[in-house]
Amino acid sequence: MNFDISRSIEVLSATPATLKALLGGLSEDWKASEILDPKSEIPNQEWRPYDIIGHLIHGEETDWIPRARIILEQGEDRTFVPFDRFAQFETSKGKSLGQLLDEFAKLRGESIETLRSWNLSDDQLELEGMHPELGRVTLRQLLSTWVVHDLNHIRQIVTAMAKRYDGEVGVWKGYLSILQ
Amino acid sequence: MNFDISRSIEVLSATPATLKALLGGLSEDWKASEILDPKSEIPNQEWRPYDIIGHLIHGEETDWIPRARIILEQGEDRTFVPFDRFAQFETSKGKSLGQLLDEFAKLRGESIETLRSWNLSDDQLELEGMHPELGRVTLRQLLSTWVVHDLNHIRQIVTAMAKRYDGEVGVWKGYLSILQ
Repeated sequence: MNFDISRSIEVLSATPATLKALLGGLSEDWKASEILDPKSEIPNQEWRPYDIIGHLIHGEETDWIPRARIILEQGEDRTFVPFDRFAQFETSKGKSLGQLLDEFAKLRGESIETLRSWNLSDDQLELEGMHPELGRVTLRQLLSTWVVHDLNHIRQIVTAMAKRYDGEVGVWKGYLSILQ
Repeated sequence: MNFDISRSIEVLSATPATLKALLGGLSEDWKASEILDPKSEIPNQEWRPYDIIGHLIHGEETDWIPRARIILEQGEDRTFVPFDRFAQFETSKGKSLGQLLDEFAKLRGESIETLRSWNLSDDQLELEGMHPELGRVTLRQLLSTWVVHDLNHIRQIVTAMAKRYDGEVGVWKGYLSILQ
């Protein structure tokens, strides 16, 4: 399937409500962090849904639309500001998961409005920017990645949840690819 | 995390709305089936979301609650009726995805009502039934599997969606575990 703006907006629009439906009614047990590598000296903890929503919020604020702007402006320096993958551990402080979900929904709504207002042409989608680590990327690739990034984090959340019951499903484990 | 009835019901309750939020606004492109192995003589097609919701409906009707009943009754023969993993290709015929999502939500609501009404004790959770292929299983394992099975299919849907853009994300592919 080729990239398409309206198809992409369909997925980007669905994410806030999907996350709210999935997470809104869960108690803490499902959302706690697990230590991934207990043998490590620096405890390697998995991200909680709380951290993931904070990360998605930071993406709306500093990644997708700001980077698209850098590409569209085609200025002298088209290098993106490096994205801080750990910003949410500071920026989310003091907020509840419900607050973060609402904030994400609001920001995502604004991002989609901006994206629609650009009314991007095929030529614009092929314009390039400079990723600080990966090098040249097109606007089309940036917007495709935004969509896949959403799906990636939904997957990360349901996989972490499923693993909580890893020791409870008994012989069924072999049938459940999410536990492999 | 140990199995817990209320915690399990939280996830089982969230699934219908999660699927509706995720799939309700998508156009056909995201929901079509892809041929997984074009070299195979028998085309091996991935399940569409449409097929998955049909499969979840069939599970409500013939798998989870009916099997729990067999265990709870502790009759002479506690062998489960084999589950038909392909029933939905017949039973969903003529229905829209929207209809299937509504049907699933209704049936899941009824299943949860039944589950709650049983007010299961720890002793009951250890009662056993006979899986036709896997052998002895407990009620606790059955109910845990029900929860993980939901999450497994959400994961299956978002993974298939992400793969539609596999060829569009360019150098970002290495950062997106869902595409590996």
